[in-house]
Amino acid sequence: MSLEPAKARTLLFGVGLGPGDPDYMTIRARDIILRADRLVHFCKRGRRGNARVTADAIIAPDAAREIELAFPVTIEVPVEDEGYSLPIAAFYDESAALLAAEMEAGRTVAVLCDGDPFFYGSFMHLWRRLSPRFPTEVVPGVTGMAGAWTRANAPITWGDDILTVLPGTLPEAELTRRLVDTDAAVIMKLGRNLPKVRRALAAAGLVERAVYVERATMAEQVVTKLSDKGDDEAPYFSMVLVPGEGRRL
Amino acid sequence: MSLEPAKARTLLFGVGLGPGDPDYMTIRARDIILRADRLVHFCKRGRRGNARVTADAIIAPDAAREIELAFPVTIEVPVEDEGYSLPIAAFYDESAALLAAEMEAGRTVAVLCDGDPFFYGSFMHLWRRLSPRFPTEVVPGVTGMAGAWTRANAPITWGDDILTVLPGTLPEAELTRRLVDTDAAVIMKLGRNLPKVRRALAAAGLVERAVYVERATMAEQVVTKLSDKGDDEAPYFSMVLVPGEGRRL
Repeated sequence: MSLEPAKARTLLFGVGLGPGDPDYMTIRARDIILRADRLVHFCKRGRRGNARVTADAIIAPDAAREIELAFPVTIEVPVEDEGYSLPIAAFYDESAALLAAEMEAGRTVAVLCDGDPFFYGSFMHLWRRLSPRFPTEVVPGVTGMAGAWTRANAPITWGDDILTVLPGTLPEAELTRRLVDTDAAVIMKLGRNLPKVRRALAAAGLVERAVYVERATMAEQVVTKLSDKGDDEAPYFSMVLVPGEGRRL
Repeated sequence: MSLEPAKARTLLFGVGLGPGDPDYMTIRARDIILRADRLVHFCKRGRRGNARVTADAIIAPDAAREIELAFPVTIEVPVEDEGYSLPIAAFYDESAALLAAEMEAGRTVAVLCDGDPFFYGSFMHLWRRLSPRFPTEVVPGVTGMAGAWTRANAPITWGDDILTVLPGTLPEAELTRRLVDTDAAVIMKLGRNLPKVRRALAAAGLVERAVYVERATMAEQVVTKLSDKGDDEAPYFSMVLVPGEGRRL
């Protein structure tokens, strides 16, 4: 293949595909996925992964090139017990071995990533195992949160605003404390944590500033004031934004 | 022009061009800057702005299409006094009026932005003045910090890590307190604040984890452990990363 990689003989590519709208893919991401020998994506069993759907705008499904890595357990709300961590670590080990075999055979492997590969990315668990052994290039991407604040029409940080990115998995008191103590916030990993996140925002006096965004930049996008959202259903690709109110000039 | 804008007759585009490497521009950004009637960028007097340099890979300089908005005062380390805020507010008023005249004449205007337009972007001050009057599309971009952690080979957040984005302008004690209380950090707006930032990192016990990145993804990129950086020179496009150490699976 005729990629022009950062280093000669790069075999592993971690490619950020952005928040979902294929037009928000970078030029480098597009070039790599057009040419890589193997296209890899994470998914739930029986469903195509979101990053792969984004790539449909560039590359048609091609069974001979594709490798699906289907999580053995839910990743919606990871829990801190061994019932989650042991099977998922084994899954990453097996996935890394599968990709290593491809690269040992001389084939280039592009792992398609939602958003940015190094920002809460599943790819990082493969990168940790494989990048010491195989020349690697990581391509940054537009994060899901940038897609969200763009489509919410909500500049997130002004002037000297402090931004805090919080997983919704934190305990309620911890969420509240940190929301009180920041200028702007993004709360990720909502899922079943949404009722708790609402209570923390209320305790911090931020409910009226909070914006709920689901599947930003994708066809099924939802953007609404959190106070206007009548239910507590929140899929994996959802988040709450609290835009900053720093220095306007 | 034959853009396919989000809304009919979009006149104002705020276009994130990413961290500097033109290959990290999105497909949407490229399409817009190829076709917009006017290309606008912020700069220091007498120097081309960084976003415009990024765009050189796509569009040659073209005096008839270009509008330079040269800041009347330094933006390196904004200060909170009227000697800064009054002239800069007048500058944004005049710049907005200039772009409004272009759009009233039916011309599309693309403002080239470093990184992402809604993340500490100068564009936001134009957007605040113009988007109520003119149909507007904002295109998210790869942030400078994503470019930095990619090139530093440093995944920034793992598992349930909390990320705090801090302006280096904060008081030292405040920086220290917040660095102690987060899993991962990005410290922006270094400039002459670097000695203070070093002291805060030392007080928080984080010097050895801190990575200094300057002009990430650009030709003159510098990446080094902060403890290996022998001087305190830090330009506007520099930052310090403290990568998270959350759950490895």
